[in-house]
Amino acid sequence: MDTVLRQSKAMCPFLKKTSTTTLRALSTSTRPQASPCGGTISKLQLLGQRCPVMGKALAIQSSRVGVTAPTAVAGMRSFSGHTKSGKAKIHTSRPNEARAVEAPLLTDQFPPAAPAQKHGNSNLPGQPASDDAKFNYEGFYQAELDKKHKDRSYRYFNNINRLAREFPRAHMANKEERVTVWCANDYLGMGRNSQVIKAMHETLDEYGAGAGGTRNISGHNKHAVELEGTVAKLHAKEAALVFSSCYVANDATLATLGSKLPDCVILSDSLNHASMIQGIRHSGTKKIVFKHNDLEDLEAKLASLPLHVPKIIAFESVYSMCGSIGPIEAICDLADKYGAITFLDEVHAVGMYGPTGAGVAEHLDFEAHQQGKPKGTIMDRIDIITGTLGKAYGCVGGYIAGSAKFIDVIRSLAPGFIFTTSLPPATMAGAKAAIEYQMEYTGDRRLQQLHTRAVKEALGARDIPVIPNPSHIIPVLVGNAELAKQASDMLLEDYQIYVQSINYPTVPVGQERLRITPTPGHKKEYRDHLVNAIDEIWTKLGIKRTSEWAAEGGFIGVGESNAAAEEPLWTDEQLGISQQVAKEINESKPAGQGFINTLLERETQQAAVSAAA
Amino acid sequence: MDTVLRQSKAMCPFLKKTSTTTLRALSTSTRPQASPCGGTISKLQLLGQRCPVMGKALAIQSSRVGVTAPTAVAGMRSFSGHTKSGKAKIHTSRPNEARAVEAPLLTDQFPPAAPAQKHGNSNLPGQPASDDAKFNYEGFYQAELDKKHKDRSYRYFNNINRLAREFPRAHMANKEERVTVWCANDYLGMGRNSQVIKAMHETLDEYGAGAGGTRNISGHNKHAVELEGTVAKLHAKEAALVFSSCYVANDATLATLGSKLPDCVILSDSLNHASMIQGIRHSGTKKIVFKHNDLEDLEAKLASLPLHVPKIIAFESVYSMCGSIGPIEAICDLADKYGAITFLDEVHAVGMYGPTGAGVAEHLDFEAHQQGKPKGTIMDRIDIITGTLGKAYGCVGGYIAGSAKFIDVIRSLAPGFIFTTSLPPATMAGAKAAIEYQMEYTGDRRLQQLHTRAVKEALGARDIPVIPNPSHIIPVLVGNAELAKQASDMLLEDYQIYVQSINYPTVPVGQERLRITPTPGHKKEYRDHLVNAIDEIWTKLGIKRTSEWAAEGGFIGVGESNAAAEEPLWTDEQLGISQQVAKEINESKPAGQGFINTLLERETQQAAVSAAA
Repeated sequence: MDTVLRQSKAMCPFLKKTSTTTLRALSTSTRPQASPCGGTISKLQLLGQRCPVMGKALAIQSSRVGVTAPTAVAGMRSFSGHTKSGKAKIHTSRPNEARAVEAPLLTDQFPPAAPAQKHGNSNLPGQPASDDAKFNYEGFYQAELDKKHKDRSYRYFNNINRLAREFPRAHMANKEERVTVWCANDYLGMGRNSQVIKAMHETLDEYGAGAGGTRNISGHNKHAVELEGTVAKLHAKEAALVFSSCYVANDATLATLGSKLPDCVILSDSLNHASMIQGIRHSGTKKIVFKHNDLEDLEAKLASLPLHVPKIIAFESVYSMCGSIGPIEAICDLADKYGAITFLDEVHAVGMYGPTGAGVAEHLDFEAHQQGKPKGTIMDRIDIITGTLGKAYGCVGGYIAGSAKFIDVIRSLAPGFIFTTSLPPATMAGAKAAIEYQMEYTGDRRLQQLHTRAVKEALGARDIPVIPNPSHIIPVLVGNAELAKQASDMLLEDYQIYVQSINYPTVPVGQERLRITPTPGHKKEYRDHLVNAIDEIWTKLGIKRTSEWAAEGGFIGVGESNAAAEEPLWTDEQLGISQQVAKEINESKPAGQGFINTLLERETQQAAVSAAA
Repeated sequence: MDTVLRQSKAMCPFLKKTSTTTLRALSTSTRPQASPCGGTISKLQLLGQRCPVMGKALAIQSSRVGVTAPTAVAGMRSFSGHTKSGKAKIHTSRPNEARAVEAPLLTDQFPPAAPAQKHGNSNLPGQPASDDAKFNYEGFYQAELDKKHKDRSYRYFNNINRLAREFPRAHMANKEERVTVWCANDYLGMGRNSQVIKAMHETLDEYGAGAGGTRNISGHNKHAVELEGTVAKLHAKEAALVFSSCYVANDATLATLGSKLPDCVILSDSLNHASMIQGIRHSGTKKIVFKHNDLEDLEAKLASLPLHVPKIIAFESVYSMCGSIGPIEAICDLADKYGAITFLDEVHAVGMYGPTGAGVAEHLDFEAHQQGKPKGTIMDRIDIITGTLGKAYGCVGGYIAGSAKFIDVIRSLAPGFIFTTSLPPATMAGAKAAIEYQMEYTGDRRLQQLHTRAVKEALGARDIPVIPNPSHIIPVLVGNAELAKQASDMLLEDYQIYVQSINYPTVPVGQERLRITPTPGHKKEYRDHLVNAIDEIWTKLGIKRTSEWAAEGGFIGVGESNAAAEEPLWTDEQLGISQQVAKEINESKPAGQGFINTLLERETQQAAVSAAA
């Protein structure tokens, strides 16, 4: 029985006391054969006309659509059918999930072919408006693609082959054509780390290319056990579970929790990643979107819900397209106050923050974690942490970490975990090696942060508009889809620099940007080349500079007076920049040269001296 | 505005003519502050009592739940709230997708804490029945796990480490403890194929461990281009698209197509895989389930739909848990007749059937494809083929193949493709090598089929109940969850044979089984050991044999008189068993020895002679 019928039964005394069998008989008895799109429920319709509510509704509908009473069934379409939004929008739910329907009742639910043109099909090549014609699938596909071209959201993929031995360089389709990659998420270059590669080679030889099954059927092995143990240890949680990707981890976990927890409400940050949005949608439960990083809005929404109702606050630590950072501690406080659990996506932060690379939550209690004392820390207070093995850890796959019982529930119930082939043993071994390496060694993420600061510093000096944030993401504002693509194409073709442009729907229209991600491998020569190239392109294409945005009052942090308040999450102290060194640099650096740039050169020289000694 | 409200407006003249603003004012004006779970809509409720339908409904509800009129709002809960089924059942939709809700209206939608006990929480440790208490998440998790234990669907994973150099052997958690794996989906042993491993080693060294980004942002490369080219060529389609897994491929493709095609109806075989069921559910469109492989039922359901409405028939070639094969050609005929497109999951068939390993659809026109003439074949008629790189091809990942426009639409619109990290270059290179190897060489799948026949033959001779089917799957019927687990445990502990038991919800209760999957590596010694072990366990545990099922009239093909009709899809001729050879074997084979067993021994001897020469 579908939802509408159940709800109608709750409202209508007639439906309530009539059995489903009788209703079905009334619906089908008079017309055994189905005619395309019309009148299969005449007896029920007849009864409907006697109803004080439906009778009037049917009459009104009939007069509106200009049909006579016997086909007034058309008026019921708005009751049993559902409208479709033309496009799955971020954070906009579609009205219904798929539902099983009784075939004999179906014909009534479809508009005839002509109204189907409302869906934008009227211009489909070869699409006839007749009910007797089959649907034109290829024409429909073409129309969808035309829409993407028209709104400039059609994506052209660049063929980028990142070379492990020449990191961060890559070759294009032509093997001789080299470019520098400035937008990969292999933030630390772990994809070419020798310990990771070694672990993968060895595992590949010993255990083969693939896992050979789902976790339940021959795909569970020591690599999974060890990797999940390492992840749990990293986040100081009781247990962890590995998925094909963090997209799947987020989707499966939120969908499962949301659908299982009775009357659950999921409170979701407005900038949450597509995987979380899908998971919430797929859960079928109630969703409340709160304004990005807005604690007041979140609290108001939490306060509007009964205390006993289960609630999940789903948010991120580093928001990847703007680099903003979630107020993790304050959200934990709100969760405690209102009886919610916290679901924190650390996808862009794992490996990058904290003394052992566990993410921003760990970073916020740097010293406690450095001392191996996780109890009572912010990370400890988070209920569910999700992360990826495919970005800073350089491999592929995703995971969740949390309490043993929570993990066992997801392991036991989530179809996206249960019914899929395990990650290959070599992938899991490589990811484990990467996590362990970063747990021990902070040099990569320190250098990554210094390179980030150096690029931000240099772009700032050229009046190039960087959207301010405290993280390692460098979003350079363009503000126009076509210009952003042109700038990206020009970087690639004229400067052999690869930075993908980020357009709608990944960011809102008008906020198009270039998203730059430095790594420890992006040394001075690459940096200077990048900054010069961007500077020249900004001039050539006439893209607005920071001062121009400022003259207009600023935009999303660029050129706004309070923008300077964004202090980097990695402090000078955490980066090992002592006040003494800072003083020396400030006194000695040439005019016009940046502080971080000078620091990096000084460190390079010192390293060269020690190497020579 | 949520679906229920929209639908109610269509039905009710009052709701229809009243603006949303007024309704909101009526709902909230009298009680500005939200009290946990009660009476925030008293003005609206007052009006409701005057309604000829709702007034009566409210009165009935009030008398039933024993509350007085002023709090009759409880009666409205059944209207605006939605009930939750305790468990996401296969092919049973949950009532609603997630939907954004207005926070101030929310409090009314929740039952107080006491009714929440209906959800099975009443025995939660520490779960208070008061509205003032926070939800007990850990208690809820424990209750969910208890349910799994109680219905015996709780899964215990076995730690199985498949050894590339000792295929099909593996070690357990203890490295010295060897077992023979008889249930992996690495059907052809491609996970240890030297060409696959070589391609992976080389790619790992040259291009690193991970792709470093999504396909759009630095994760698109020659490996993706070449793999998709190879897949398209394999299936003789215009284009292909690779995903993290075929779970994701099926889910993302069906969800995207179903939600985009206007008023789409998806007709789904009742035994379809969880990934397809999820994809259909996530599409939010109409779903009609047809009886497994039942063309009459499918046609009746197709015929009930208007011709012009877009329809997708989603089905599989080899159904993995019973080994049955879909009637592909007849479904293509129906699709043509009723204007549907076909979505064929060949996950358990790619690499295994057809002259180039493209699957069952290819196998059905064996000679045409052998001659490189795909035009007009059954495979050519299928609109969408999905497959995996993680089973017969021994790696990980999934794909779809179809028309160029269709592929471009999914590439452009499916969040599960767009927002996830690409598969690692080495994985894609390995998968490509595996497909190419199997396109050229038929020996592995031929031997796999012979080994399958040999095991079926030997089990049949011992009166062990194999559910008959024309494919490479050997489902041995147990018919009881506990016995199936015991048999599996006994095989592992007493015989060092790993065959996972398959219980509910993967198969229906009462149809529990052991699912055996031979490979080219499962030679005579392993086979004899397996058959003896099963025979002994059947005796020890008193599990029903074929003759016992037959005495009861048979069950799901076992012991049924027409069961013999299941001819293997790979014919004798396709397997290269000439009539002459068959005659010789039948004349010479010792009494009690199976035909295929004798054939295999003969071939082994011939191979040894040629090797010695």
